[in-house]
Amino acid sequence: MSAPAGRRGRRPGSSADTRLAILESARASFAERGYAGTTIRAVAGAAGVDAALVHHYFGSKDDLFLAALALPVDPRVVLAPALEGGIDGAAERFLRVFLSVWDDPEMQLPLLGLVRSVLDPGGVELLRSGFVPIILLPIGQALRIDHPEHRMPLLASQVIGLIMTRYVIRLEPIASMTADDVVATFAPTLQRYLAGDLPIEGD
Amino acid sequence: MSAPAGRRGRRPGSSADTRLAILESARASFAERGYAGTTIRAVAGAAGVDAALVHHYFGSKDDLFLAALALPVDPRVVLAPALEGGIDGAAERFLRVFLSVWDDPEMQLPLLGLVRSVLDPGGVELLRSGFVPIILLPIGQALRIDHPEHRMPLLASQVIGLIMTRYVIRLEPIASMTADDVVATFAPTLQRYLAGDLPIEGD
Repeated sequence: MSAPAGRRGRRPGSSADTRLAILESARASFAERGYAGTTIRAVAGAAGVDAALVHHYFGSKDDLFLAALALPVDPRVVLAPALEGGIDGAAERFLRVFLSVWDDPEMQLPLLGLVRSVLDPGGVELLRSGFVPIILLPIGQALRIDHPEHRMPLLASQVIGLIMTRYVIRLEPIASMTADDVVATFAPTLQRYLAGDLPIEGD
Repeated sequence: MSAPAGRRGRRPGSSADTRLAILESARASFAERGYAGTTIRAVAGAAGVDAALVHHYFGSKDDLFLAALALPVDPRVVLAPALEGGIDGAAERFLRVFLSVWDDPEMQLPLLGLVRSVLDPGGVELLRSGFVPIILLPIGQALRIDHPEHRMPLLASQVIGLIMTRYVIRLEPIASMTADDVVATFAPTLQRYLAGDLPIEGD
């Protein structure tokens, strides 16, 4: 908003530098102004490049947000198969995909870095204003549940607790549970949050 | 273990300094060696004081651990009433106490500091090797549930997720839910972890 979009003077030399400058500008903007308050135009302006170049490198604002999060996988892609088949068994299918990513040692390291950065003030804002509309709500909408804006954060509360105990704190027995036991233990909780009887305002 | 317990040379001048030196020594030892690997004698030695003085100021090793965590309340004291009355409704009674502490603005700040420090490597060790045996397992034992060492970490996973979403990330609708709605939403989850049918090894 404040930075002029057309300023091109300090555009970096290589395309890798340009990508990095855009990503840094995007992270700063998402952290300071949230997802809704961030525009491609302002990100481009702060990075000293054209808005068209941001679109060229990163696609839509959603794509730029996911790139700024530096996730090792695109949750929209890996979760797509779990979202087919309707609400019956949806929690179990979701958990199977979740575990296939998080139990993979190569995925865990970048994901744990993300978890740690979330506790920074900017990281919390990024999660609240971006993660929810970009990743969480679309899952609920794809499952066609009622009140996704109420139910998906409940699902997130147990999934975050599972991430903290299984991968961050490594609390036994959760840290060493088989995938089958994780599913048998947590899927009923998640399924109730997705489709069970809950106190929901306005209902 | 390595520091001689009898060294008294650099014992600080005031009792406030002495308490602080003992606390710092205790925090370092719990973080490095865990709860089980920490002895009052070694903490005293590293602080340059007598073991008897540590007992005098802080009581037992459990008490010293809780003092090192710097909790604004002693969970053993505030939770005691919730543990009476047996397993029926135990999750709801637990949640009511939990919310009375965490929803109190004066309690929240020191508790949030604790949450942030838990993500440090030493904090994770402190939580895993101390929080579980000192705070979590005694709750399960007081409730006389079967397999407290399996069930209480499951309860912790949802409580940690509730802390993260309601107080750290402040994710709606969880952040603004009334206490009654928090109880109606999460007590069934916790009650199942405490007493429901779960895959438990050796059962």
